[in-house]
Amino acid sequence: MATLKVPATVPSVADDCEQLRKAFQGWGTNEALIISILGHRDAAQRRAIRRAYAETYGEELLRSITDEISGDFERAVILWTLDPAERDAVLANEAARKWQPGNRVLVEIACTRGSAQLFAVRQAYHERFKRSLEEDIAAHVKGEFRKLLVPLVSAYRYDGPEVNTRLAHSEAKILHEKIHHKAYSDDEIIRILTTRSKAQLLATFNYYNDAFGHPINKDLKADPKDEYLKTLRAIIRCFTCPDRYFEKVVRQAIAGLGTDESSLTRVITTRAEVDLKLIKEAYQKRNSVPLERAVAGDTSGDYESMLLALLGQE
Amino acid sequence: MATLKVPATVPSVADDCEQLRKAFQGWGTNEALIISILGHRDAAQRRAIRRAYAETYGEELLRSITDEISGDFERAVILWTLDPAERDAVLANEAARKWQPGNRVLVEIACTRGSAQLFAVRQAYHERFKRSLEEDIAAHVKGEFRKLLVPLVSAYRYDGPEVNTRLAHSEAKILHEKIHHKAYSDDEIIRILTTRSKAQLLATFNYYNDAFGHPINKDLKADPKDEYLKTLRAIIRCFTCPDRYFEKVVRQAIAGLGTDESSLTRVITTRAEVDLKLIKEAYQKRNSVPLERAVAGDTSGDYESMLLALLGQE
Repeated sequence: MATLKVPATVPSVADDCEQLRKAFQGWGTNEALIISILGHRDAAQRRAIRRAYAETYGEELLRSITDEISGDFERAVILWTLDPAERDAVLANEAARKWQPGNRVLVEIACTRGSAQLFAVRQAYHERFKRSLEEDIAAHVKGEFRKLLVPLVSAYRYDGPEVNTRLAHSEAKILHEKIHHKAYSDDEIIRILTTRSKAQLLATFNYYNDAFGHPINKDLKADPKDEYLKTLRAIIRCFTCPDRYFEKVVRQAIAGLGTDESSLTRVITTRAEVDLKLIKEAYQKRNSVPLERAVAGDTSGDYESMLLALLGQE
Repeated sequence: MATLKVPATVPSVADDCEQLRKAFQGWGTNEALIISILGHRDAAQRRAIRRAYAETYGEELLRSITDEISGDFERAVILWTLDPAERDAVLANEAARKWQPGNRVLVEIACTRGSAQLFAVRQAYHERFKRSLEEDIAAHVKGEFRKLLVPLVSAYRYDGPEVNTRLAHSEAKILHEKIHHKAYSDDEIIRILTTRSKAQLLATFNYYNDAFGHPINKDLKADPKDEYLKTLRAIIRCFTCPDRYFEKVVRQAIAGLGTDESSLTRVITTRAEVDLKLIKEAYQKRNSVPLERAVAGDTSGDYESMLLALLGQE
């Protein structure tokens, strides 16, 4: 389900490093060469290149990149080149420090990564920021959002397939009752959403739909513009239909005048090795336009080329 | 700081298994033999014995033990033989399921194990119980205790030595103000205690003492019998002086008529490979009696022999 295209024969790590060094040096930067290498290597290969580059040239690859390119293109190349856990740690740190209620990055990271992967993000966060992820969120976020987001990122959910049907029924009823009374930040809603396994939550949401005649997210739309309710809906969508969740983020990033480059870059760099193919299919289905064409229409230059490479364009 | 005594020349794993098998078989059980082997092997050696025993005899070692011995002796041998993370998972599961406000086991596990070790406990919990630790606590514990204990066990604290002095000052003031207003379950108290690194918390408690003229735990003694306040004090003691915290648990387990075998067994089995020597020193200092003598006076038979072996008695 990844879109990343790695060539059948990959040059040696030493060759890749040498080519990248050449791309950075001399008169002007060879952006196309940077894209043709980094835009076509998987996480393990990029990690090997970063290590070898630092050893060979005595300078971090990410530092060389930052010195040579800038703007949206720089951000896309840097985020992509980072290890997935490190990248998420960087994104989560930005989200925590500049937190505002419309930010969904923490929800995405907490709910679309597996339990082991989320823990790897927390480890990378320690290493890079000398603090814990939950510590920074708890210090920067207030009120009902803090009450929801701190346990959401701290969870180490059981990730087996077992489902307790009786529990799904009783917790669907609890959710329904609390939502009915507009107690959206009630302890019980937060407890269920932040501690139950994904399999258990899917069973609970399915029973909710069966028992009460509509999806839980419809009942969470009482005030469509309320950011806390939007956050709850995002959590549920990240669990139930991550491809459609991300399709919507990309659609809104592209729609209208101007582009939300930050969201576009984030979704493409974080999903290219995971499920970007599904997101592309969802986009095509919803908008009757291939995502590549929409991205090409809204971006330009090296930034456009980098995104298209990650989107798997030949 | 461990009390466990492993012989200079340890028999092969195969020999240990054979001897254990002999101890279980025939007319009556050879309890002394069980103690002489398992009571003198470290965690890695016990793990190797469990694996080899299961492979050789087609039966789990813990199962054989349970079939042959019983009561407090059985519990001590079983808990001791388990891997540290698995043992903590078992203790935490019991504490969560039969939770009552006086139970400090979750606090101990969350605050005296390192960050990586606490995470290992959460992994072992998944494996053994097919649920997450925080999920079970959130489902069984209510009110202010839940608000405190769920983030406490979910934390993955930064464990570096860095301290932010300004932050220690400002958070000591927050703690003081909330305690002054008896807002003991305030979000801010819980945020600070459950997310900050141990080094940062020690700096905060030190500044509290300097700035307000007495230790924070004195201010948390407004109602000495209140279990929630006792829990807060236990958290702080587990961070600041784990040896004296455990000394008190052992002292109370032994004191008075009857013995609290559950607490005694727990402290000895969980600390014998960690800091039981320090706890023994603290006990001797506080009670003018060696801990071994106190344990021997309050227990008997094979249970006594097992505890004394773990206490390092020659």
